[in-house]
Amino acid sequence: MVVSKSWTMVKHFVGAPKPEDFKLIEKELPPLKDGEVLLESEFLSVDPYMRPYSRQKKEGDVMIGSQVARVIESKNSSFPVGGYYAAYSGWTTHFISDGQGLNALPASWPKSLPKSLALGTVGMPGLTAYFGLLELCQPKEGEVVLVNCAAGAVGSVVGQIAKIKGCKVVGSAGSDEKVKYLKEIGFDVAFNYKTVDSLEEELKKASPEGYDSYFENVGGKFADAAIPQMNTFGRIAVCGAISQYNDDVPPLGPYIQTYMIFKQLRMEGFLVHRWTNRYEEGQKQLLQWVSEGKLKYHEHVTNGFENMPAGFIGMLQGENIGKAIIKV
Amino acid sequence: MVVSKSWTMVKHFVGAPKPEDFKLIEKELPPLKDGEVLLESEFLSVDPYMRPYSRQKKEGDVMIGSQVARVIESKNSSFPVGGYYAAYSGWTTHFISDGQGLNALPASWPKSLPKSLALGTVGMPGLTAYFGLLELCQPKEGEVVLVNCAAGAVGSVVGQIAKIKGCKVVGSAGSDEKVKYLKEIGFDVAFNYKTVDSLEEELKKASPEGYDSYFENVGGKFADAAIPQMNTFGRIAVCGAISQYNDDVPPLGPYIQTYMIFKQLRMEGFLVHRWTNRYEEGQKQLLQWVSEGKLKYHEHVTNGFENMPAGFIGMLQGENIGKAIIKV
Repeated sequence: MVVSKSWTMVKHFVGAPKPEDFKLIEKELPPLKDGEVLLESEFLSVDPYMRPYSRQKKEGDVMIGSQVARVIESKNSSFPVGGYYAAYSGWTTHFISDGQGLNALPASWPKSLPKSLALGTVGMPGLTAYFGLLELCQPKEGEVVLVNCAAGAVGSVVGQIAKIKGCKVVGSAGSDEKVKYLKEIGFDVAFNYKTVDSLEEELKKASPEGYDSYFENVGGKFADAAIPQMNTFGRIAVCGAISQYNDDVPPLGPYIQTYMIFKQLRMEGFLVHRWTNRYEEGQKQLLQWVSEGKLKYHEHVTNGFENMPAGFIGMLQGENIGKAIIKV
Repeated sequence: MVVSKSWTMVKHFVGAPKPEDFKLIEKELPPLKDGEVLLESEFLSVDPYMRPYSRQKKEGDVMIGSQVARVIESKNSSFPVGGYYAAYSGWTTHFISDGQGLNALPASWPKSLPKSLALGTVGMPGLTAYFGLLELCQPKEGEVVLVNCAAGAVGSVVGQIAKIKGCKVVGSAGSDEKVKYLKEIGFDVAFNYKTVDSLEEELKKASPEGYDSYFENVGGKFADAAIPQMNTFGRIAVCGAISQYNDDVPPLGPYIQTYMIFKQLRMEGFLVHRWTNRYEEGQKQLLQWVSEGKLKYHEHVTNGFENMPAGFIGMLQGENIGKAIIKV
C-alpha cells in the first residue's frame, strides 16, 4: 500500500501566499487496475503562473503543477517500470495514471543532463521563452531585445535565445548576484532594478538606440519605463505580470495607447499551450542547444517535499536564479 | 498675382485647441516656373490626428492637413488645368507644386460622388479603417467587432466593412443622433456612451458573447471597460486615443497586462502610411463599395475657409457625423 502526500491550498491566497495557506495531506492509494501505472515524483516545479491560476481551483484542492516522475509499478506495458515522465499532476508525491497526460522525456535526453530540466529549460518555461520570443517578438539579427525577470526560468532562456539569434540583449533582475549570473550567460547589459536610481534612465543608458523587442514578465512600473523606449514597429510579448499577481484589483499606470499608435507597437499576451502541437520541435531545439553548451541553465533546488510551500513562496519573492525546483 | 490664405498655429495647443491659437495669414505667390502648377483648394480635411501631430510643427507654422485641390494654372503638362488632386499641403487656399505629392483621384471616380470623399471614405480615413480592420483585426464571419467613435470618419467605415465581412458590429458614439445614424448604416447595436449608466454593463448587454475584434479610436475609460470583455485571441487595432490627445501627461488607468496574457490578446497600434504601397488597392475597393451602395458616407461640411479653426475645434468636440470637411 502506497501513501501519497499532497499539498493542498487551504484558502485562496490574499496578497502574497503565506505558509498557513497550505496544508499537507496523506492518502492511501488503491491497488492498480489493469492499464494503470503508479508514479513517484522526483522533481516538482514551482512557477509564477501558479499564483494567478490557483484562483481557478477550489479551497482544499491539491495545488496545481508539473513534476518529473518515475514509474514504480506498472500494469500498462506502454509505461514500463523505471520510465521517466513529465506530468501535470499537482503537488503530490505519488499518483496513479492510465497513461493519459504522461509525457515521456525526449529519447535523445543525454545522461549528463538532470531530468529536472524537463520542468525548466527543456520544459514549459523553456518552451515559453522559445515560442514567445521567436513567434511573437520575431527578433532579427542586430536588434535589441529587453527582458525582465531575466534571471528567472523563462527570462534566462529568452536572453540566451536572443543572443543565439544575433541580438543585443538587455536584462533586468532583482539582485547583484543575478546580474552577475546574467553577464556570465552572455547578456550584453544587465542591471539590478532594485538599486538603480531611475529605471527609465537605466534603460536609456543600456540601449540609447531603444528596444525592438520586449519580453514582458513583470508589468507595472517596469512597463511604464520600457514601453516609451520601444522603437517603431517594436514587438512586446506579454508572458507574465508578476508585479500584479498579488493584487486583487489591477493597479493603475499611465495609458499606453498613444505610444502604441505613434510607434506602431504590437503587444501580444500569450500562454504557451497555444503551441502544444509544436512542443516536440521546441524541446528538440532546446535540448540541442543545451547539449551544445549554447544554452546554459541554472537550478535553484529546494530539498524535501515538505519544503514545497517555502520553495514556492521564495520563488515568488525572487529567491531563485534560474529554475526553482523541488527535489523530493 | 494670386494671394494664398493660410491658417497658422500661433502657439502649441494646451488642452483643447482654442480659436485664439490660430491666425490667418496671406501671402502673394510668385509666378510659376517651368514644371510647376498652381492649385486652388476646394475641400480641406480636419482630422483628430492633427491635434497630436501639431506638436511636431513650430509655432507660427501653417497647420498640417490634406485637401482636394484643382489645378488653375499649369507649366507642367503632366498636371493639366482642371485636374483634381489630393495633396498634403496644409491649411491653405492656394499652393504651388512641382507635381510631387499630388495624388490624382482614381480614374474610375464616378461623376455622382463628391470629390471630398477623397479626404474621407475613399481617402485617408477610409484607408485607415480598411487596412486597420482587415490587416490587424482580421475579422472573420460571425465574429463580433467593437468600434468606438463609430460615427466618425474612420469608425463609420470600420463598422460597415465589418458588416460586409459578415460580422456582428457594436458601435458607440456620443449623441442620440449619431446612434440613430449608426443603426441606419447597418450597425447591429449602437449606444450613446455619454448617457449610459455603465459602459461596462452596456458593452455586456450589446454582446453577451464578448468581443473578438476591437477597433480603438478613443482609449481611456472606454478601453478600461472593453478590454476585459475581449474573447480569447481577441485583436485590438489601436488607431486613435482621442480621449488623451488633449492631455500633456498620459492619465492613469488599470494595467491591462493580465488580461492580455490570460485572454491571449493582441493589440497593435498603427499609422495608415505603413500601407502606402497598397493605397491603390484600398481606394479601388472602397470606391467600388461606395458606388455599389454597400458603403454609405456622410459628411459634416463647414462652409468657408475662414471657419476652418471652428470646424477643427468642433470635430475634436465630436460635432460631426461622418467626415468633417471644410468647403472653401
